[in-house]
Amino acid sequence: MSLVVVGSVAYDGVETPHGKVDRMLGGACTYISLAASFFTPVSIVAVVGDDFAKEDVDLLAGRGIDLEGLERAPGKTFFWAGVYSADMNDRTTLRTDLNVFADFQPKLPERYKSYPYLMLGNIQPALQRGVHSQMHGLKFAGGDTMNYWIQDYRAELEATIRAWDFLLINDSEARMLSGENNLLKAARVILSMGPSALVIKRGEYGAVLFHRDGYFTAPAYLLESVFDPTGAGDSFAGGFLGYLAGCGYSPSQDASSDTLRRAVVYGSVMGSFCCEKFGVDRFRNLTRAEIDARFQEFQAFTHF
Amino acid sequence: MSLVVVGSVAYDGVETPHGKVDRMLGGACTYISLAASFFTPVSIVAVVGDDFAKEDVDLLAGRGIDLEGLERAPGKTFFWAGVYSADMNDRTTLRTDLNVFADFQPKLPERYKSYPYLMLGNIQPALQRGVHSQMHGLKFAGGDTMNYWIQDYRAELEATIRAWDFLLINDSEARMLSGENNLLKAARVILSMGPSALVIKRGEYGAVLFHRDGYFTAPAYLLESVFDPTGAGDSFAGGFLGYLAGCGYSPSQDASSDTLRRAVVYGSVMGSFCCEKFGVDRFRNLTRAEIDARFQEFQAFTHF
Repeated sequence: MSLVVVGSVAYDGVETPHGKVDRMLGGACTYISLAASFFTPVSIVAVVGDDFAKEDVDLLAGRGIDLEGLERAPGKTFFWAGVYSADMNDRTTLRTDLNVFADFQPKLPERYKSYPYLMLGNIQPALQRGVHSQMHGLKFAGGDTMNYWIQDYRAELEATIRAWDFLLINDSEARMLSGENNLLKAARVILSMGPSALVIKRGEYGAVLFHRDGYFTAPAYLLESVFDPTGAGDSFAGGFLGYLAGCGYSPSQDASSDTLRRAVVYGSVMGSFCCEKFGVDRFRNLTRAEIDARFQEFQAFTHF
Repeated sequence: MSLVVVGSVAYDGVETPHGKVDRMLGGACTYISLAASFFTPVSIVAVVGDDFAKEDVDLLAGRGIDLEGLERAPGKTFFWAGVYSADMNDRTTLRTDLNVFADFQPKLPERYKSYPYLMLGNIQPALQRGVHSQMHGLKFAGGDTMNYWIQDYRAELEATIRAWDFLLINDSEARMLSGENNLLKAARVILSMGPSALVIKRGEYGAVLFHRDGYFTAPAYLLESVFDPTGAGDSFAGGFLGYLAGCGYSPSQDASSDTLRRAVVYGSVMGSFCCEKFGVDRFRNLTRAEIDARFQEFQAFTHF
């Protein structure tokens, strides 16, 4: 069933110990929607500049992604550049040119408004809320956020996530949002803020799903070589949401956490593929069969 | 079946955000043998000074631990003191008085030499080798090491672990020993150095077991409150080895990794209990039923 993804479509310049790419397709919405497109129909809401290349439109369209909500504005596409440390656990931002993204006002095509799944990428909470409030018939909706909104837009952020079914953030964001250092306590605080499902991403250590009745831990896949971790967290989100939308998941009809657990593992699977090549390159030729084979591998190396 | 544990028995002074204890029973051999004692008969080889308290002897003996190899030497027992950071991810050593441990020469009682399981705590590699070479009829033997031996005693260490069935170290030690930053590559290098099983501990993120045919990831238990992480890694080792010894595990007779996997989970279980109270306190009243209940919890929060 259809998933609406809202967020940034960008160009990235990335340097890792494995190489350097000056300009390639990036952005949260791009990674989320590409990853999700292997599981379910995806419709995006984003803005790009007049420099946005036809080949990048073709890549998204080629994955069946509905681009009616992809606005073209005069000016340049959001550009970000960064360099990773030797062990790739740290990255330094070299440049952030918001360009047309600075004035991004998500415009939801009429057709999208009845779609049942919504993933709000990391943008200003008020904008996230504006999109959410226009949707009717949502089955499972939520999104991501970041330290900047947690620190400086807390009231707005809290009002926004109160209406969400899920929140998907990393561990330092969870600690900041909850004011609790301990992960269990942090999760309890956040679950009391609205969402019934919380996924805390822990990078190379995997992710933990918290829900009303308990938690589920998923490891990250051990890769022989991490080429470029850019977009891994967003690809995780795409795998998670895409799988749930593909199943027609509804929290009210699926009381067990089984479907959510599998979704977290599919998130880890998509995050792992993302790291195997620069940028979105791994998604160009990835197949659902490869995805399912890696899901089986996760079962094999976690079973006891 | 009987497990021989060699290493330090000490007194520790520990300060965590939850409190401060000036002097309490500690040491790798203590944690390993207490944790293992819930699964199998344990015999220790260690040295203490004439200040070693009767109540601490009683605690070990009360858990059925064979103390024939616990030497008493004139002088003081090894003393270590440290303080943990607010988030408990870092600790600073305040004092290390080796005392009688400085001249520790493990003396293996005759009776121990035919025991089938051996866990060599983190001591000088030549001493570890000396113990190993006196044992006949070993089914599964190995141990731990640390950065100091890896850096300054590499040749001796490599000669020592060549004869081991398993090595149990943390992730930074694995990277240092292998010269590889990537965990999969590091594991491959280390498995080529001798051991057929490698367990890499990752603290609050759990542990990974590497063996000839693949790997297995186990998460750490999420604790509401970590009182004192001192000894958690050694308690992990005790749970791991104790469970294997209790099963009569033999790598030549058990080709699958099923038993090793369960042993890693029991290691995580024992590490988690260790953190719930100061020092070894949680082991005073712990029961096998509580241990098995937590093992079931691990199944519940990792299953998908």
